[in-house]
Amino acid sequence: MARKTRSVEDSKSARTRERILDSAAYVLSRKGFAGTRLTDVAEHAQLQAPAIYYYFKSREELIEEVMVVGAQRICAHVVEALDALPSDIRPIDRILTAVEAHLRFVLVTSEYTTAATRNGGQLPDHLRDRHEAERTAYGDVWRELFTDAAAAGELKPDLDAGATRMLVIGALNWTVEWWDSTRGSIDALVRTAQSIVMGGISAPETTSGIIDTSPAKPARTRSPRRKKTVTA
Amino acid sequence: MARKTRSVEDSKSARTRERILDSAAYVLSRKGFAGTRLTDVAEHAQLQAPAIYYYFKSREELIEEVMVVGAQRICAHVVEALDALPSDIRPIDRILTAVEAHLRFVLVTSEYTTAATRNGGQLPDHLRDRHEAERTAYGDVWRELFTDAAAAGELKPDLDAGATRMLVIGALNWTVEWWDSTRGSIDALVRTAQSIVMGGISAPETTSGIIDTSPAKPARTRSPRRKKTVTA
Repeated sequence: MARKTRSVEDSKSARTRERILDSAAYVLSRKGFAGTRLTDVAEHAQLQAPAIYYYFKSREELIEEVMVVGAQRICAHVVEALDALPSDIRPIDRILTAVEAHLRFVLVTSEYTTAATRNGGQLPDHLRDRHEAERTAYGDVWRELFTDAAAAGELKPDLDAGATRMLVIGALNWTVEWWDSTRGSIDALVRTAQSIVMGGISAPETTSGIIDTSPAKPARTRSPRRKKTVTA
Repeated sequence: MARKTRSVEDSKSARTRERILDSAAYVLSRKGFAGTRLTDVAEHAQLQAPAIYYYFKSREELIEEVMVVGAQRICAHVVEALDALPSDIRPIDRILTAVEAHLRFVLVTSEYTTAATRNGGQLPDHLRDRHEAERTAYGDVWRELFTDAAAAGELKPDLDAGATRMLVIGALNWTVEWWDSTRGSIDALVRTAQSIVMGGISAPETTSGIIDTSPAKPARTRSPRRKKTVTA
């Protein structure tokens, strides 16, 4: 019985910690590093401000955690989508899968993304290190995707690989600044982004197994192949 | 003589105002809306803080002006590049020219861009209106470019036009967060961005008159045609 009670409390505690992080991401994305006050975070989380100190030592520790958690989670989400792919899928399709996973993640957890996007350059140095380390780890995932595609001859040879990778990630990250559901469905945005990336980076003869890139039939909303990525 | 003196003073005053704006953009991009203090702006501009009030009524007016000026200038710069093109240039090449002009502008005036990027979502409502109006005017320039290219049948028909435009602009804007001269030349970045955009958005049979998109000869750094865009 005692064990059960503790586990219920642990889970309640984990949920409260999560609510504080979510609220901090919300406030940080709107007020910025200097303008984020614990009283606003507490109000948004429907808690008393001192309760936050049970979970985080300081305002700075909470902000650091928002940045780190945002970077960790998107990395885990994209890696999971890649790991779910069949092993014989071609490298270009791994990139298109990462495009979809990244895009869906930033749009549904947009508070963390906008918090990181808008404040990454505003953090004091001592709060940057952990966030930078997570970003680097995530960057390595993308670097490997591009290296593999280049090795398979699937990338246009005239592109600078590093710049290409960052331009693609930039296009995806920026969506949190303009996309909302009045613009259409996330599915439609994913298809447009995948089509641009496919056409933009792949060598002429490359084809995709997960999106239909044949010029003859541009409409591909009902392609049964799509399902693979959606569930990935 | 009096006129000459006044004109010299006017020009000195204009330079000082400009230096304050530049410094405010610098501080705003690093400290955020809530963290930007006039004393820091003054220190960066090598002025006494009260001198700022000769040019701007308040901290908020100065910040608003940084956001507005940044949006106005990039719009003017891109429009100028487009106006310099020959009248018979095809719509897709007008888009590629805008890609280059936007990219070069954000990278050389990156303080204004990062200030706007990071703080656009953090401004209080009463400071947003003028910035939003300028952004909309600039958005209209891009909208027209895409409408013309679509009308000419030069865009892939499966793309969502609005999403495509914003994904392209996002990729370009995001460069201020990662690009620096250790990554290579701006020229190389411009070529990579143009190549991705061209392949990503154009209909299969579309060719460009300003970049070489023939699959047979991917390396195009020395193409004499390039000069047209560089000087545009």
